[in-house]
Amino acid sequence: MPVRPSLDPAVADVRRAVRAALETSRPASVVVALSGGPDSLALAAAVAFEAPKLGIAATAVTIDHRLQEGSADAADRAAAAARALGLDAVVVAVQVGAEGGPEASARHARYAALSAAARERGADAVLLGHTLDDQAETVLLGLARGSGASSLMGMAPERTDESGLWMRPLLGVRRATTVAACAAEGLDPWHDPHNSEPRFSRVRVRERVLPVLETELGPGIAEALARTAEQLREDAEAFAEMIDETIEDIVEHAEAGISVSAAALAANPAALRQRIIRLIVSSEFGESLTRSQTLDVARLATDWAGQGPIDLPGCSARRIGGRIVFAATGHGAASA
Amino acid sequence: MPVRPSLDPAVADVRRAVRAALETSRPASVVVALSGGPDSLALAAAVAFEAPKLGIAATAVTIDHRLQEGSADAADRAAAAARALGLDAVVVAVQVGAEGGPEASARHARYAALSAAARERGADAVLLGHTLDDQAETVLLGLARGSGASSLMGMAPERTDESGLWMRPLLGVRRATTVAACAAEGLDPWHDPHNSEPRFSRVRVRERVLPVLETELGPGIAEALARTAEQLREDAEAFAEMIDETIEDIVEHAEAGISVSAAALAANPAALRQRIIRLIVSSEFGESLTRSQTLDVARLATDWAGQGPIDLPGCSARRIGGRIVFAATGHGAASA
Repeated sequence: MPVRPSLDPAVADVRRAVRAALETSRPASVVVALSGGPDSLALAAAVAFEAPKLGIAATAVTIDHRLQEGSADAADRAAAAARALGLDAVVVAVQVGAEGGPEASARHARYAALSAAARERGADAVLLGHTLDDQAETVLLGLARGSGASSLMGMAPERTDESGLWMRPLLGVRRATTVAACAAEGLDPWHDPHNSEPRFSRVRVRERVLPVLETELGPGIAEALARTAEQLREDAEAFAEMIDETIEDIVEHAEAGISVSAAALAANPAALRQRIIRLIVSSEFGESLTRSQTLDVARLATDWAGQGPIDLPGCSARRIGGRIVFAATGHGAASA
Repeated sequence: MPVRPSLDPAVADVRRAVRAALETSRPASVVVALSGGPDSLALAAAVAFEAPKLGIAATAVTIDHRLQEGSADAADRAAAAARALGLDAVVVAVQVGAEGGPEASARHARYAALSAAARERGADAVLLGHTLDDQAETVLLGLARGSGASSLMGMAPERTDESGLWMRPLLGVRRATTVAACAAEGLDPWHDPHNSEPRFSRVRVRERVLPVLETELGPGIAEALARTAEQLREDAEAFAEMIDETIEDIVEHAEAGISVSAAALAANPAALRQRIIRLIVSSEFGESLTRSQTLDVARLATDWAGQGPIDLPGCSARRIGGRIVFAATGHGAASA
């Protein structure tokens, strides 16, 4: 009788991560986003193993972005691999637009199709294969934006939006582990040529920036970046919770726009004050403020010396008595 | 009659930054930390110009670390340059120990000597020449530690400790601006050979990491890093303020150690909960916790299932009734 080989440690790591995520959220049915690359293939294999034990139905959904020659074949091969693992599998072809650059528009089309596929199948959650390495890359890309915790907190391990629950069970798993897991299970991952095209900033971060950081600052930098993301996400959640508790008490809606108490703003620590200002402008006018715009508005509360209205994207802010009033741009002018 | 040349823009930038800092804090007398390098030399020149107009006395203090051949000469030349600018100037020789590596021990000796020099002269503040580039380097070095906002918030523009007020008026000024300011004023800065020794991690960040980030993620990365530091510092200050307001209500000191209410910890958002745990251990036992140690302690409050005491650096934490009790390691054992 052949000796049963012991479980490969990489396979065990991926399964453990998937099991922990599924046990915590207990979805009844999930969709696995399967590109066919090593991360999502290792994820699909682990889901195929773990989901049935927890009574969870699982379908692999492969998006054909139709951006490369032979993309349909690659998608079909991924779906076939999923079926061989025992999963239901479908391929969905999408039309990628041009808005916001090639990476953003492909991502947009992909997420919309995954969300629709989950809805059609009545799935509670979409599982994504992002790894610790993806998280580290996201933090470095955020660093270049320089907008503080909100740009450094990376991707959420679990996030619920209008399309449902998005889960990333592998955020604590290294990419090398998913590669090793595929090899150990005899799976043959697809290598997306886009993943080595230096015109994508994420590819440059992966291939040029992270290796330099590892060399110059020591190994463990990817883990350090991922840890940083986790902590900054907690910070952002704590601030969001505090603002949630107080915002309705200090904001008033009126015909001319929305206003906030200057005294309440001034009494808050700077970190909260600036988040409240940015939240008002983004939720009311759909615009993002830069740090320097935010600080200009904050000074209407903290350093009021009669300074004039401040022009902002989509609106203006001015001090009227004890309040700071945000009005849509053109609103006052049009009625004057 | 010769035409008076207009003020060089780099000189104007440095002076403006120094004036803004001095006008805000209004010290009566300051010490300028002068290494003789371009940053501190430009700072000294700006202080020599601005301080008298505000009635502020200023002394340049140059620390001779005695780590390099000819360091005393370099220090004397820096002091002579300061005198030529119209400042009082002294050189203080220090003994650099070996604790914590060469960078840390030189820094320790330097700050102690600056603080002593300020005290002797009755100065209210020590002015340091750190620039925006130094801040960006500090953020990158912090990133490698991966301990969240506290390791990414860089250096404070103003900080008061037991030795007095430390000011960094040039944190918003690029290093290239200080170099240009020195050139425009005919000042000849000293170039510390330590600043190009790749055995120092800061030198590697400056010469190898930042240039790669600039190339791959676009220019403006140093500014983005500095902006991130500013915002994360505000976040950290907000959390510190909130904890200050509540800590005494939830913590109790007893003979066996210090305890905190599990319910209060659990009711706080994770970001505050973990900061409270770390604060207790650092203020009571002088030790830093890793993220995973901190999370283990947090679970005593949030996921209590009878788990045993947790060994920590310098202490242990255990759940007793509704409280989490931290006791010095060996304390219980010694008296048992």
